[in-house]
Amino acid sequence: MKAVIIGTSGHIDLALGVRDRAHGVSFVGIAPGSPDEDARSFFVDQLEAALIPWYDDWRAMLDRERPDLAVIAPFFHLQSAVARECLQRGIHAFVEKPMATSLEDLARLRATHAAGRAKLCPMLPYRYHPEFQAAWLAVKEGLVGEPLVAAAQKSYKLGTRHRMYTRRATYGGTIPWVAIHAIDWLWWFTKGGLAEVVAAHTTAGNRGHGELESSGACFYRLANGGAASVSFDYFRPQAAPGHGDDRLRVAGERGVVEVMNGEAVLATHDAAPRRLEREEPRAIFLEFVRHVETGSPMRIEPEEAFAVCEVALKSREAADRRVPVKLR
Amino acid sequence: MKAVIIGTSGHIDLALGVRDRAHGVSFVGIAPGSPDEDARSFFVDQLEAALIPWYDDWRAMLDRERPDLAVIAPFFHLQSAVARECLQRGIHAFVEKPMATSLEDLARLRATHAAGRAKLCPMLPYRYHPEFQAAWLAVKEGLVGEPLVAAAQKSYKLGTRHRMYTRRATYGGTIPWVAIHAIDWLWWFTKGGLAEVVAAHTTAGNRGHGELESSGACFYRLANGGAASVSFDYFRPQAAPGHGDDRLRVAGERGVVEVMNGEAVLATHDAAPRRLEREEPRAIFLEFVRHVETGSPMRIEPEEAFAVCEVALKSREAADRRVPVKLR
Repeated sequence: MKAVIIGTSGHIDLALGVRDRAHGVSFVGIAPGSPDEDARSFFVDQLEAALIPWYDDWRAMLDRERPDLAVIAPFFHLQSAVARECLQRGIHAFVEKPMATSLEDLARLRATHAAGRAKLCPMLPYRYHPEFQAAWLAVKEGLVGEPLVAAAQKSYKLGTRHRMYTRRATYGGTIPWVAIHAIDWLWWFTKGGLAEVVAAHTTAGNRGHGELESSGACFYRLANGGAASVSFDYFRPQAAPGHGDDRLRVAGERGVVEVMNGEAVLATHDAAPRRLEREEPRAIFLEFVRHVETGSPMRIEPEEAFAVCEVALKSREAADRRVPVKLR
Repeated sequence: MKAVIIGTSGHIDLALGVRDRAHGVSFVGIAPGSPDEDARSFFVDQLEAALIPWYDDWRAMLDRERPDLAVIAPFFHLQSAVARECLQRGIHAFVEKPMATSLEDLARLRATHAAGRAKLCPMLPYRYHPEFQAAWLAVKEGLVGEPLVAAAQKSYKLGTRHRMYTRRATYGGTIPWVAIHAIDWLWWFTKGGLAEVVAAHTTAGNRGHGELESSGACFYRLANGGAASVSFDYFRPQAAPGHGDDRLRVAGERGVVEVMNGEAVLATHDAAPRRLEREEPRAIFLEFVRHVETGSPMRIEPEEAFAVCEVALKSREAADRRVPVKLR
């Protein structure tokens, strides 16, 4: 299977980091998503990936290499257009989230995907994180009862970010970029049960990052009458261990399951709180390659990925307009 | 100083538990807040407080004992009326939260308090909990910067509760009873900066407790553009250690402070996360007694207590009506 990389602005390490285990996949080309991406120096300097042939123009690369699969991570506002062109050419797309930064782009991408046979997978890898999978299994098995209240947290270090992040037009916003993972958790755990969103975000405290929202919160009414909260921020101090502080707590009549510090803990009425067993970590890119080759199931299917992206964009709208937005 | 107890439906242990240290305070009477309270058996059986003279009628008790101070904890819907009568008689009131279960009752209580000279303190004791005080001091000293995002959690065990809890008319609701503590934290940490609320609550999963809301969430827009989330529930499993699982996280440009498991932890850019030193625990009842005797300052003044109660009642309204409610 021939693979290419288009753009280096997102988590291409999800693919390159497991390159040695991607048997049968050869990376035949790499190109920036746009001329202003500075991708070449990033690659040569930081990823030592110069052994992959370099192209200045990704369309020329596709014309010449005719790859089977593309890893797509340009500036975020370009993701949907690049993914669409790949899908139209029959190239399977492993595409950074948010797959689109506007509802219009998302609708176009959905239609293009539906019209063809190429497969698509978003870089929403948490369903393959063992602690989240363990928590989800506990909920799926009914161990906490119907999920009635949930609280999620995404907290990242800000550092100094590329100018792409400093403009809504190229970045898309912190809800679609950061909070989308928490939205994915909630969508997954509640079986798509998010009914309405209210949200807020602010650029205050963003340390010179222009339009980038430093922090905010989303509130979701659940279809079952419950409620879910998401807190997101770039305030994780530089001196703290690790880049992110991901948390999820889901509770119901029978108990509480919680993910924190890379562990999942279940508390129920009949036993003391206990750590849940975790599966071996799986790489979403390898799962996608296998899916393309054999049709094996993915934990996140395209329709769910589109829905999660839609909720993220509508949550951003709720924050921008300061009004509740219906989700179903 | 002569003290009485009216009602046993709330946290009268906040006073009785420190009775030995309340020098100069003698408890001269105890009475139910209403005939249907079953207070006498509760007292005789559970608190071994029978040494305090028993009255069937709290007004008769006030007439006869002419106390200086009343500990007020009847069925929750009666709190404001009992507190008002005490204040009108010049009796200082240590009153269970929510001090009123309707905005009308709250307005009456405020007016009565303003018209007299008797002092008032709500049973909102967290400002005297060492870990919350430590976290608040860190925020006050600017160690996290302007608070821009906050998330709070109140989670209690449900157990089997008195029928008073099963009716909105007597109980008032889980937001004014449970979430009010988190509202108090947010009000305190943001200097009253709560600008708008959206909320949800549900009776699902309440294990036969009628109208009692098992869980829910509140979302607050902050006056500075930030956002705060509150998650509350009665889903803490019976087998979990301790009754409650109180959490608060407040973050800004400079760092993150967090309360969990009775500890406060501060993370800033220049140092690894560290536990904050905690003062010796203080009892809010003893602080109130000293305040009455000497005029020493309280960490929660009546105006703030009224404001916190008002936010709680408006948050309940937001949840009932499913619409945003302005707070300023």
